[in-house]
Amino acid sequence: MTATPVPGNLTTLKRMVADTPTRPPLGDIAHIGHAQLFTPCPEDTVAFFTGFLGLTVNGRDGDHTYLRTWDDYEHHSIVVTRRDEPGIGRTALRASSSEALERRIQAVRDAGLAGEWVEDEPGVGPLWVTTDPDGHELALYHETTWYEAPAELAPGLKNQPQAKPGHGVGVRRLDHINYLAADVAESTGFVIDTLGARPTEQIRLDGGRIAARWQTFTQKSYDLVYTEDWTGSRGRLHHLAFATDTREDILRAADLALDTGVFIETGPHKHAIQQTFFLYVYEPGGNRIELCNPLTRLVLAPEWPLITWTETERKKGQAWGLQTIESFHTHGTPPVG
Amino acid sequence: MTATPVPGNLTTLKRMVADTPTRPPLGDIAHIGHAQLFTPCPEDTVAFFTGFLGLTVNGRDGDHTYLRTWDDYEHHSIVVTRRDEPGIGRTALRASSSEALERRIQAVRDAGLAGEWVEDEPGVGPLWVTTDPDGHELALYHETTWYEAPAELAPGLKNQPQAKPGHGVGVRRLDHINYLAADVAESTGFVIDTLGARPTEQIRLDGGRIAARWQTFTQKSYDLVYTEDWTGSRGRLHHLAFATDTREDILRAADLALDTGVFIETGPHKHAIQQTFFLYVYEPGGNRIELCNPLTRLVLAPEWPLITWTETERKKGQAWGLQTIESFHTHGTPPVG
Amino acid sequence: MTATPVPGNLTTLKRMVADTPTRPPLGDIAHIGHAQLFTPCPEDTVAFFTGFLGLTVNGRDGDHTYLRTWDDYEHHSIVVTRRDEPGIGRTALRASSSEALERRIQAVRDAGLAGEWVEDEPGVGPLWVTTDPDGHELALYHETTWYEAPAELAPGLKNQPQAKPGHGVGVRRLDHINYLAADVAESTGFVIDTLGARPTEQIRLDGGRIAARWQTFTQKSYDLVYTEDWTGSRGRLHHLAFATDTREDILRAADLALDTGVFIETGPHKHAIQQTFFLYVYEPGGNRIELCNPLTRLVLAPEWPLITWTETERKKGQAWGLQTIESFHTHGTPPVG
Amino acid sequence: MTATPVPGNLTTLKRMVADTPTRPPLGDIAHIGHAQLFTPCPEDTVAFFTGFLGLTVNGRDGDHTYLRTWDDYEHHSIVVTRRDEPGIGRTALRASSSEALERRIQAVRDAGLAGEWVEDEPGVGPLWVTTDPDGHELALYHETTWYEAPAELAPGLKNQPQAKPGHGVGVRRLDHINYLAADVAESTGFVIDTLGARPTEQIRLDGGRIAARWQTFTQKSYDLVYTEDWTGSRGRLHHLAFATDTREDILRAADLALDTGVFIETGPHKHAIQQTFFLYVYEPGGNRIELCNPLTRLVLAPEWPLITWTETERKKGQAWGLQTIESFHTHGTPPVG
Repeated sequence: MTATPVPGNLTTLKRMVADTPTRPPLGDIAHIGHAQLFTPCPEDTVAFFTGFLGLTVNGRDGDHTYLRTWDDYEHHSIVVTRRDEPGIGRTALRASSSEALERRIQAVRDAGLAGEWVEDEPGVGPLWVTTDPDGHELALYHETTWYEAPAELAPGLKNQPQAKPGHGVGVRRLDHINYLAADVAESTGFVIDTLGARPTEQIRLDGGRIAARWQTFTQKSYDLVYTEDWTGSRGRLHHLAFATDTREDILRAADLALDTGVFIETGPHKHAIQQTFFLYVYEPGGNRIELCNPLTRLVLAPEWPLITWTETERKKGQAWGLQTIESFHTHGTPPVG
Repeated sequence: MTATPVPGNLTTLKRMVADTPTRPPLGDIAHIGHAQLFTPCPEDTVAFFTGFLGLTVNGRDGDHTYLRTWDDYEHHSIVVTRRDEPGIGRTALRASSSEALERRIQAVRDAGLAGEWVEDEPGVGPLWVTTDPDGHELALYHETTWYEAPAELAPGLKNQPQAKPGHGVGVRRLDHINYLAADVAESTGFVIDTLGARPTEQIRLDGGRIAARWQTFTQKSYDLVYTEDWTGSRGRLHHLAFATDTREDILRAADLALDTGVFIETGPHKHAIQQTFFLYVYEPGGNRIELCNPLTRLVLAPEWPLITWTETERKKGQAWGLQTIESFHTHGTPPVG
Repeated sequence: MTATPVPGNLTTLKRMVADTPTRPPLGDIAHIGHAQLFTPCPEDTVAFFTGFLGLTVNGRDGDHTYLRTWDDYEHHSIVVTRRDEPGIGRTALRASSSEALERRIQAVRDAGLAGEWVEDEPGVGPLWVTTDPDGHELALYHETTWYEAPAELAPGLKNQPQAKPGHGVGVRRLDHINYLAADVAESTGFVIDTLGARPTEQIRLDGGRIAARWQTFTQKSYDLVYTEDWTGSRGRLHHLAFATDTREDILRAADLALDTGVFIETGPHKHAIQQTFFLYVYEPGGNRIELCNPLTRLVLAPEWPLITWTETERKKGQAWGLQTIESFHTHGTPPVG
Repeated sequence: MTATPVPGNLTTLKRMVADTPTRPPLGDIAHIGHAQLFTPCPEDTVAFFTGFLGLTVNGRDGDHTYLRTWDDYEHHSIVVTRRDEPGIGRTALRASSSEALERRIQAVRDAGLAGEWVEDEPGVGPLWVTTDPDGHELALYHETTWYEAPAELAPGLKNQPQAKPGHGVGVRRLDHINYLAADVAESTGFVIDTLGARPTEQIRLDGGRIAARWQTFTQKSYDLVYTEDWTGSRGRLHHLAFATDTREDILRAADLALDTGVFIETGPHKHAIQQTFFLYVYEPGGNRIELCNPLTRLVLAPEWPLITWTETERKKGQAWGLQTIESFHTHGTPPVG
């Protein structure tokens, strides 16, 4: 009575589940800790994150500005760094324990990839820095400083790290990161095999190639996404996403964007894949930013199957029929000539 | 650089976290599978769950009716069973794997409690049945049949088990169960030590006694709650809760309750503890049912501390100042004379 | 110190308003009473209105089915009538008083149009039936029977005509009607001059032709809309719209549509013109139905100016950038070969 | 076939309506223009209105600060004025035309009350100032200057006067004013008879006395409310209310209040009377401020009956069962020793 989760349709998966395939224990990587974003205009980019999204600056250091969402328990949710071109820098993944951190580092080394320890960020302990096969910088760490809000940002309830901001969208957390990669199957294989990510949904082209795959470290249905880079470039970003508490927050965000000149690329609408309610905008540095809301959807089944979407299914567009916008396939950062 | 998570206020927790205390690996118990509710009037109770909450009947068997929420991947979310008095019957907890199931059974046995295997429910494999120290029936299982929707309930998207119901509130899932118990510390100690539940929040009376404690098996902030039974009785229920997708669903539910005569006990409002947006109603059998919405709040930190609320803090009432209603301390099921 | 409201931009209208141009007193036509919809498949169409939109059947008579939204104080909000082809039949406008009714009939006669009295609908008194210049049937009436809900539909609050339905979208009212017309300026001139409609927004093509104009009888910003018929046909319908209480109702409606196979044409999104949050679907008979939500927007200024949108402005698409869907310019009912 | 609207229950009003009682034509008073609020701490009060509610300062003059909600087409929505004690000052009502203004002034004079012309406010023409029988200052005016937003507040859509604020609650408009009065029947009789207000709902005590009455000048279900002053004092304020676009705005407001220390008196909840979704807070000067949302409810029937609530009905509390808070009957401004 053993069942193997197979790609398919939840409604056609009828089976007695006994045992799930061996994989790294859920939770060696607890969650995405924070991400680093490059921008040629850091002042404008920081103003976007504070004024429009409602993040709080929690320190500056040379070309780096550290920003937090209000529900983050750590020092920072993103790092905005001056660079000639926009794009994604380091993605820091927090391990669940020191032992979990060691296990994951060993797994990466066993896969033949190198890494090195750095201590270059405030509020967190040493980070072990490596890259995925596509060249995106990944850092693993465990030690962290719990955030203590100053008086002016103290929340009304003790089970909340920081007051909810009264300005801007007021996003709750950094939700997920969507990379572009030359070889999606290879790069997602790496994060699945060495970091214990679980794939939950994917697009398989008619020819068999995996065009996109969604992975999770948590019971959210995805944390780290890889989409095929149409240019064949490496290490690029499709978008960075922040979760709002409600869909109404996203509708309000669209109005604020309209009235303040923030560029809306597409949305609000609902993704068919992962069912996320979304809005895509560009920050002043050119990076694509998603505001997303998953409602209360969680992936709690231990053997949650990998759902595969075909080319034909993708042609139906988003959940409610919106066609995927062309720039979704032409805009990534850094731009490619 | 080792830190022990201590009860306290998130805003005053400033520390470098290195290692977290040893505990059963996250995830031996994957999530609450389903719960059994007793009612003297099963037809009315089932009509409440289908007509008002929007659950679907998925089988009947003698005195038992099996009902599902639309996002459940298993056979049933609750079992409604005819009994002279209302109350809670079996709570079934799904283990993450066969090995995880064995580990948890052994842990319960090591704690000196007995159990036995039964095969008496459709859609799931064998269940190992025991009780918590207060007498609530607990069942551990792993094998399960994934639900396949019949054509008339097929969803529009393949990553969803069943169409969203067009009638009633349309709750997404069985969210949590709140027991009454004579000794909260003892009972929660049991589920923490033997089942790997993690306590996230608690109320400690001035005299030191734990009046309530919230435990989670998942990254939701709670799944299983114990509140002190003011009557000293054993095995009783405070409430069963279902999660909605939005707070608007709960406001709409309150209007539907008003227009159809469903008794509203209190709410809609927001809990200070766990910050859940709530509405409490009674089903026709007398059991208290909560509709709850946590927004997108999750507990992702591996060392999430146990937050302790004092008597003084509790006297402030709910998050926005509503005083806790008196019947919250006098109504449980089965009723006590 | 007299100011004439001029077409323009609210933000560039800076003037001292002393007197507004003479027009029929606000309120001779109180509001749209109901509308008649033709369909070749009345059973399916009625099932759509009851099951999906949550209307209630309030009588049948031969080929006619009378349906109500829950907040309508009159006998019916729409009449569904069997006909070989879909389309719009009678639009009934309720006059504020007997005198107001007489004034409006006289104004229509003064404009050279004929009409006749009929008594062919349940729940309302005599209707004076005429047509607009494009051939859409209009009926003026005043006498009406206030609706009394039967016990099973009785509301929980005495200031509400009927319980809110627990199934379907639960639209509050028939909100507006959007006709197609060969000559928008002529037809809207008629309803403005003879019926006292006030134009609030319009599209003026570069060549000067009015492509669409929005009129109101109330303090809602529009009740009756005329859009140019690209086929030159007469008497056709673009869409019929129902108001929901919240935008969340519309998002939920989109999910219900997705899961039950209701065709979504476009949306949810927000119109630039009138700022309405919208979702367009087709009912089984082929007529386009809008679900709309205006938030709390009202037109209270007595001299609210007529806002004019240019072709260039229209090319920007909807409020948040969605391009207007092609079928908006090709689908009307009855269809034209 | 003549029907007289009678106090009662909408669901028991079954009649053929032919003619409605004679009353001043709907619309001589177009809407409430603005209100003046007294406060002993104008800086804190203004900070509350700008920071928490999201109003914009549009001028200062001595002890007066003029503030606007984003959807107001006039110069200001409220005037905050320094005074030793909190309370309500002038309520300005905009007449629909010069003729309408003259008619209403004559009606007040015919009722034996005096008034005088003043020109003491920016952005509006002459105001004719009088009082209601309880002593609340009322001002009638017609001339007004349409607001033109400066570049930094320019909206994204031309049919909107000002950009939606990105901070605070972002209330759309001043919605209604609730006075306290020694004799509710007398004061409401005055605004009904001389100003053409229409009563829509009322509370009648068992002894026959009217304890509260809701009046409207518009198709909103109320604009001006009188509640009996338990102290017998005159000219006092119960609360001033601002409309939000959504109920979610009010839930968000409650969280912002919680995190910033704004005092919440009661709510969020739903009124039985008028069905408004509400939140009551106190501004720093001591005046009670309501945030309200009526969904899309409008009173469009020309003969909308006056709904009467009995003492027994009132004892049921608010719509979803919340008991009316005690301070609702003890807190008014200015305070009475």
